[in-house]
Amino acid sequence: MINVLFAARPERWTTYEAPLHDAFRAAGLNVDLRTDFAPDSVDYIVYAPNGPLQNFTPYTRCKAVLGLWAGVEDVVTNPTLTQPLARMVDHGLTQGMREWVAGHVLRHHLGMDQHIHGQDGQWRSHIPPLAKNRPVTILGLGALGRACAETLASLGFPVTGWSRSAKDIPGITCLHGTDGLGSALSTAQILVLLLPNTPATENILNADTLADLPKGACIINPGRGPLIDDDALLAALDTGQVAHATLDVFRVEPLPPEHPYWAHPNVTVTPHIASETRPETASNVIAENIRRGEAGESFLHLVNRDAGY
Amino acid sequence: MINVLFAARPERWTTYEAPLHDAFRAAGLNVDLRTDFAPDSVDYIVYAPNGPLQNFTPYTRCKAVLGLWAGVEDVVTNPTLTQPLARMVDHGLTQGMREWVAGHVLRHHLGMDQHIHGQDGQWRSHIPPLAKNRPVTILGLGALGRACAETLASLGFPVTGWSRSAKDIPGITCLHGTDGLGSALSTAQILVLLLPNTPATENILNADTLADLPKGACIINPGRGPLIDDDALLAALDTGQVAHATLDVFRVEPLPPEHPYWAHPNVTVTPHIASETRPETASNVIAENIRRGEAGESFLHLVNRDAGY
Repeated sequence: MINVLFAARPERWTTYEAPLHDAFRAAGLNVDLRTDFAPDSVDYIVYAPNGPLQNFTPYTRCKAVLGLWAGVEDVVTNPTLTQPLARMVDHGLTQGMREWVAGHVLRHHLGMDQHIHGQDGQWRSHIPPLAKNRPVTILGLGALGRACAETLASLGFPVTGWSRSAKDIPGITCLHGTDGLGSALSTAQILVLLLPNTPATENILNADTLADLPKGACIINPGRGPLIDDDALLAALDTGQVAHATLDVFRVEPLPPEHPYWAHPNVTVTPHIASETRPETASNVIAENIRRGEAGESFLHLVNRDAGY
Repeated sequence: MINVLFAARPERWTTYEAPLHDAFRAAGLNVDLRTDFAPDSVDYIVYAPNGPLQNFTPYTRCKAVLGLWAGVEDVVTNPTLTQPLARMVDHGLTQGMREWVAGHVLRHHLGMDQHIHGQDGQWRSHIPPLAKNRPVTILGLGALGRACAETLASLGFPVTGWSRSAKDIPGITCLHGTDGLGSALSTAQILVLLLPNTPATENILNADTLADLPKGACIINPGRGPLIDDDALLAALDTGQVAHATLDVFRVEPLPPEHPYWAHPNVTVTPHIASETRPETASNVIAENIRRGEAGESFLHLVNRDAGY
């Protein structure tokens, strides 16, 4: 019997209990899954950082902490965590992100808002360029950034991707490092942020880097709120350097009603909906990692503590 | 020397003269291209139905009429036309249609409008289903319908396509004929109209067929205005049988300001922008057909007069 502690908020237990049991059964694992155990009897922890468990010290037998979230910035710095930590890389989340990013890139590319807002009887004929003449840049080439880059390329957009270390993705212009960032931004008529939140990426979009964009660029942030210096973005929106920002993530969520993003005519706030882990597909990832742990194989999606993701 | 008459509105001559010369040169054709010739000296006519040429009788030497438009309903019934007629199948137009259709399908799938309109400080968290759980149906599987079907399938949507005669497209559920139509409509959470305008397709979306849709379906019409019985659609919008209609084409264009579509809260009017022939790519199609005519080869994209497309 494998003892698995489910350590997340109670509403998550409601949505995950049945899919996890299904996934363990499908993987042939004999699991006792509970929200409460004596800490020294726990073999694996299924974990969300906003739940009650913050001290990992008593979990002396735990072989791995298996995160339910793609982002690990709220757990990777926990000094009590000595066990291996795996991020969630969920096919459902990745697919949902592809759909959200493709939809909003096409929205800005096609200039949809002028028609959605402009139902006033005026026939505003404006033919957008083809996608092949609309360069898109994605900052971040992890599982999500790569999937979105490939999807946008398949729709015809010339896609540039930027990451901290060098990558090679067929069909994508890959740039990296500090030197590559300015170049990646300089062609970005539409910029998509899919970086992790680390000390190195905080405020990566600031007054200096916003000035590297071509005038009138659109920014789409389904990544993490702290990637953007909010005051610098508001200033760039006011000058027209940035034509529009569609923002799904924020430093404080829900975004307070008085935040200037809500009232800005060139900002679209969406309520952290781009990346949602789907219980069915995520449960299969958890089960596969427990199977690997029991078989002595290496875990999927292990977090590099030094890099922070 | 091959005499090619350009018979379209003057503003088209402005945009097409240079690209056509470039395309003829690239094809190695020695062409005299003009907007005026003695009719019995013309070898080919480059044609748009809304221009001055309506009587083809004097063009006794003309080997083919090469249309600039994808739709031929305004010329195919011309009794003076005895020459072969080719439609425009333009890669640029097809690509533009893919982008427009993918964008608006994703817009409705993701429920974007509630956020584009709803910038009022309320955090409306609503996670849409994945595309795999959002069936889309396309009526019409010509060059445009097929390209859109394949694009939507690549984004993860289950796509059903319907056409008059049977087709077989990998990855697409293909239905056909009168019997197949009800079935194709019955699963369509999002319905895309890409049929030609013929007597058989006029008002194909009417009170009866609208009732075949699942309640709350969205309709996207980048095809032809007369495909829809406008009164029946307005009635279906008012009952909620149809949740939203995004319409790019109309019986009368520009759509008159007093038309009820403009004021309806669940209709988005766009100004016939989904399918625009691009002069550079279209000129290559014209040149290729002239090359074929001169070489005694069969023309591309010949219109079947009986079918009307």
